[in-house]
Amino acid sequence: MPPPATFSSFSALMRRPPPPTRRLLLVAAARPHSTNEASRARPRFHSPSLPSSKGEVVRIQGDEFWHMTRVLRLGINDRSRCFHFFLSWIAFFLVEFLCASVCITEGECSHHWIQAYCQWIELFDGAGGLVEGSIQKVDKNGSDVELLENARLIAPQGIQWHVFAAFGTLKGGRADWLIEKCTELGASSVTPLLTERCHTIAENRVDRLQRLVLAAVKQCQRVHDMSLKPPIQINDLPLVVAQSKLAFLASAEAPPVLSVLPKSTDEESGLLIVGPEGDFTEEEVNILKAAGAVPVGLGPCRLRVETATISLLSALMLWSDASRQETQRSR
Amino acid sequence: MPPPATFSSFSALMRRPPPPTRRLLLVAAARPHSTNEASRARPRFHSPSLPSSKGEVVRIQGDEFWHMTRVLRLGINDRSRCFHFFLSWIAFFLVEFLCASVCITEGECSHHWIQAYCQWIELFDGAGGLVEGSIQKVDKNGSDVELLENARLIAPQGIQWHVFAAFGTLKGGRADWLIEKCTELGASSVTPLLTERCHTIAENRVDRLQRLVLAAVKQCQRVHDMSLKPPIQINDLPLVVAQSKLAFLASAEAPPVLSVLPKSTDEESGLLIVGPEGDFTEEEVNILKAAGAVPVGLGPCRLRVETATISLLSALMLWSDASRQETQRSR
Repeated sequence: MPPPATFSSFSALMRRPPPPTRRLLLVAAARPHSTNEASRARPRFHSPSLPSSKGEVVRIQGDEFWHMTRVLRLGINDRSRCFHFFLSWIAFFLVEFLCASVCITEGECSHHWIQAYCQWIELFDGAGGLVEGSIQKVDKNGSDVELLENARLIAPQGIQWHVFAAFGTLKGGRADWLIEKCTELGASSVTPLLTERCHTIAENRVDRLQRLVLAAVKQCQRVHDMSLKPPIQINDLPLVVAQSKLAFLASAEAPPVLSVLPKSTDEESGLLIVGPEGDFTEEEVNILKAAGAVPVGLGPCRLRVETATISLLSALMLWSDASRQETQRSR
Repeated sequence: MPPPATFSSFSALMRRPPPPTRRLLLVAAARPHSTNEASRARPRFHSPSLPSSKGEVVRIQGDEFWHMTRVLRLGINDRSRCFHFFLSWIAFFLVEFLCASVCITEGECSHHWIQAYCQWIELFDGAGGLVEGSIQKVDKNGSDVELLENARLIAPQGIQWHVFAAFGTLKGGRADWLIEKCTELGASSVTPLLTERCHTIAENRVDRLQRLVLAAVKQCQRVHDMSLKPPIQINDLPLVVAQSKLAFLASAEAPPVLSVLPKSTDEESGLLIVGPEGDFTEEEVNILKAAGAVPVGLGPCRLRVETATISLLSALMLWSDASRQETQRSR
């Protein structure tokens, strides 16, 4: 983390003046909606490959570049606008003085303002890599971002949920919604399931859903990608179920899911299984139960495939988050 | 409920012969996906007004008529096809004999077969009215359905959840998706919320969403409609919150929702509040908390407005279902 600014590093600050006020407001406005790091105002961009060391430069192009420069209007600092230059500095020192008089940690306060002033952004690669950077150059085709620290590798947090759902025959964009919402809710992977009542999924659909996953990962700024796996037959699923201690099967007449979940768990991954339109056959349900899947009910309402999947995933995700926080509190 | 058929009522059965086999299979195939009454094969249709007494006739037209006759291909029995007539009867007696030898309740088994044979359907009005009927006449513009029993009035079950969400500025079909999924998940009402960061909702959008609600109610065959209420200002919400003992506010840094929920409750209704893109302002959160809303967290992921709404609604619905079943079990 770069050191907080103090009055003694004035000369260092003069080499990197604060940006014009409009950019400052835009950066401050780019706040995530609901995240663990809601206090940070830094926008985040996806880069498939991240260098690892401070000082290295990575090129941002394509959709991310467009979003950076056209939507958020971020750019390098503009040293030729002298009036803004001095006005921004006056504003900066006023704010620093105010922060110093009210903030418990002066360093923290000025650090946040410097982040905003210096157009700091974050880059992530979808494999856990996350790093702060600063825009150094913008041209017609892309921008160069310099890493301000060594890249961090963030381990996945909480239980990794793997979704197996028979959504191959869903029409009208419903499969798209399912994939997008699974990504937002933090599923680790989604696998299309082929059953007796849903025995196909088009090849071009899988490709298209892959592109949707990537767009959804960028939109919700997940540090880890969600993987869309190749379709599997229902007869191959018991083997996967048998290897997991947390496997839940959406079933109409089963006990409510929240009654069935244990109080806490040490498992690191689990899986949820949702049948097709028309539900699983009785034989399919029996083989999954024999392999260890626990049938769970999703309430009295008649749910579509994508709604049942999101409802179950959401309940499991909220349960695992509550268990994890409870465990952390008790330590 | 019409009495089950037995061999002694052969003459009664002869007046209403079983339908051709294809229709029999179609009716049997029209099974609800996931419902409390999953064992019933009767398709269900919406009629805004239902007569109350057995024997009365109601007219089905429009979209419901098209679905009945073109999609499910239901119709009256066709007495002129003698071959099918006798074949169906032979099949019926064979099945009745088999059922009698294997069913614990013979009456129940033959009752189910007669339902299928006699093209029995269900009609609902969205206000809790539900009744079995039989198609008596089909013409170019509609069909006449005779009530086979007095109409029942089904009371709402479980906690009635009222959703207040600032979704007025959502684009790209996301508001549609929110409304549809709230309907499927059993919300009692949805009210658009107008806040500082989401201060409008287009008039024609509200009309359009109303039509969506109706379509979603029919699709998921809810016995009770979901009401879409007029938009309200955030400053008017504390009054509503103060009248409820169960009010939950989606909030990024709050404790997980499943940790905050009590073990059980006797309340009959509750409300959930979700902010706009950009979230509530701090002042708005404070006035809601002061009125009694409990902030709840929805996990570590960054959720869009519609995803947060569905996630919270789903969790509350599953919790209230589990509490209700637990209460019933302990009595």
